[in-house]
Amino acid sequence: MRVVYFSADQDAAAWIPGLQAALPNADVSLWEPGAPAADYAVVWKPPQQLLDEQTQLKALFNTGAGVDALLKLKLPVSVPVIRLDDAGMSVQMAEYVCHAVIRHFREFDAYEADTRGGKWSFRKPRSRIDFPVGVLGLGVLGERVARAVAQFDFPVNGWSQSAKTIAGVRCFHGADKLDTFLAATRIVVCLLPLTPDTENLLNAQRLARLRPGGYVINVARGAHVVDADLLAALDSGQLAGATLDVFRVEPLPKGHPYWTHPKVIVTPHTSARTLRSESIAQIARKIAALECGEPIAGVVDVARGY
Amino acid sequence: MRVVYFSADQDAAAWIPGLQAALPNADVSLWEPGAPAADYAVVWKPPQQLLDEQTQLKALFNTGAGVDALLKLKLPVSVPVIRLDDAGMSVQMAEYVCHAVIRHFREFDAYEADTRGGKWSFRKPRSRIDFPVGVLGLGVLGERVARAVAQFDFPVNGWSQSAKTIAGVRCFHGADKLDTFLAATRIVVCLLPLTPDTENLLNAQRLARLRPGGYVINVARGAHVVDADLLAALDSGQLAGATLDVFRVEPLPKGHPYWTHPKVIVTPHTSARTLRSESIAQIARKIAALECGEPIAGVVDVARGY
Repeated sequence: MRVVYFSADQDAAAWIPGLQAALPNADVSLWEPGAPAADYAVVWKPPQQLLDEQTQLKALFNTGAGVDALLKLKLPVSVPVIRLDDAGMSVQMAEYVCHAVIRHFREFDAYEADTRGGKWSFRKPRSRIDFPVGVLGLGVLGERVARAVAQFDFPVNGWSQSAKTIAGVRCFHGADKLDTFLAATRIVVCLLPLTPDTENLLNAQRLARLRPGGYVINVARGAHVVDADLLAALDSGQLAGATLDVFRVEPLPKGHPYWTHPKVIVTPHTSARTLRSESIAQIARKIAALECGEPIAGVVDVARGY
Repeated sequence: MRVVYFSADQDAAAWIPGLQAALPNADVSLWEPGAPAADYAVVWKPPQQLLDEQTQLKALFNTGAGVDALLKLKLPVSVPVIRLDDAGMSVQMAEYVCHAVIRHFREFDAYEADTRGGKWSFRKPRSRIDFPVGVLGLGVLGERVARAVAQFDFPVNGWSQSAKTIAGVRCFHGADKLDTFLAATRIVVCLLPLTPDTENLLNAQRLARLRPGGYVINVARGAHVVDADLLAALDSGQLAGATLDVFRVEPLPKGHPYWTHPKVIVTPHTSARTLRSESIAQIARKIAALECGEPIAGVVDVARGY
């Protein structure tokens, strides 16, 4: 069995020996133009040429949860595209989002501004009933995040394209329930897949439906948010703030208003990193299952986009 | 029935009408020297004179979880001392501690120092296996905190005076297991009651037993920590940092090294605030139960100290 690996970002020198160790009967190598036909390709943001040349693939593994970059390419019709399902990412997302929610709700930045000035301050505790959290997207990551936030007794709403049931989460689904979800939400967390339907979803009109003093946490893709609309809503006072981990262009370009906006916390796409060893183990398990003709999780519906 | 209220810190103008509304058949008033004998006293850091004068009390309610200030007074021998059990405090503690653990583990401060300078940085993800969290004290608050941290897949240890069993938490108990607990812990969270046994518990010798790169979160009482020893361990590099919400003297005195220490995060005793309405409802329920001769939770073992 031949496996080729390519990543635009990741360190091939670490991935290839890892994949080789996990797949001892395979020949694992870095993809290069003209490489011989392989059975499986493990990729992150590959060039079109890889897909055009590799005509014998049994499956194409994406080393991330979001496949939007891959789906922009012309894909071989009959080859299943497999995304990572979790591989240590959901707990990182739960951490990142809970940290951001608590930091905002508990006013830790305001306390810290005081303590940095040597001031011992008192603020009236806020009521969590006034801070319902809404999670957009209830896949593996969104569901874990919703459950994690609910553990801190916040009212939690969830919205997804298709119907979901999660204990402790008020679930909405379908385009016609999006406004109801937003109107019931103060802190909105974006964990949607990026598709033509979800691109620019958080625009002026939708942000205006959030409860007063709304807060945006985006850990999905930059293109979910209309940046000018978010900045306008922050500047008008309609929104209290935003924690943004993802951007239309990454790294976030020099001079972008997000870098210095007093109501925006920027992190460098670090909310949930692909963990190499867990990802390699998952891909190796899935290849073994495919070789035995067994079903696997994480097969992307290319038409749907996730 | 007569109820007297006294607090050295809280706003009596809000508590007294609240208690009166919750206890419509009682006469609730602010305690003043020479006040007539009451059936119940609801207090926070009362003067000795209140205890000396109020000789008819059926119970003494403390409007906080920690009774160390109260137990420094000469208490009437036969009057039960009742502390708040939870009343909205455990979820606040879980929030505060999870926020501090995640902030440290995920290096959010280092990322933020970079983004404030307009720098998009990458740090190698840390492994949570290397960051076992240990909770000292497994009462109502400690148990909730331990469970909340465990939800983020950290290894979690717990230590208490008497044996406890908590799913997902490796529980140690008794003085002779404290060193084993500390040696298995990197991030130690103090949620102990303050008693002669636990005062100065986190001294140089005990801090030295933590795993290398240890971290201290104190949300119990300032006197649990020997400040000079903690500062020395931070300065030597033995400890990576500390998040401190409680201090020997509060407000933390001007000029105290904690205010400006680069490895210390100071918050003004805000980890878990007594929530007035929940506390009043709990005290009213307990008074009603006592009047019917029913058992109640939160009765302090004065000899044990909590």
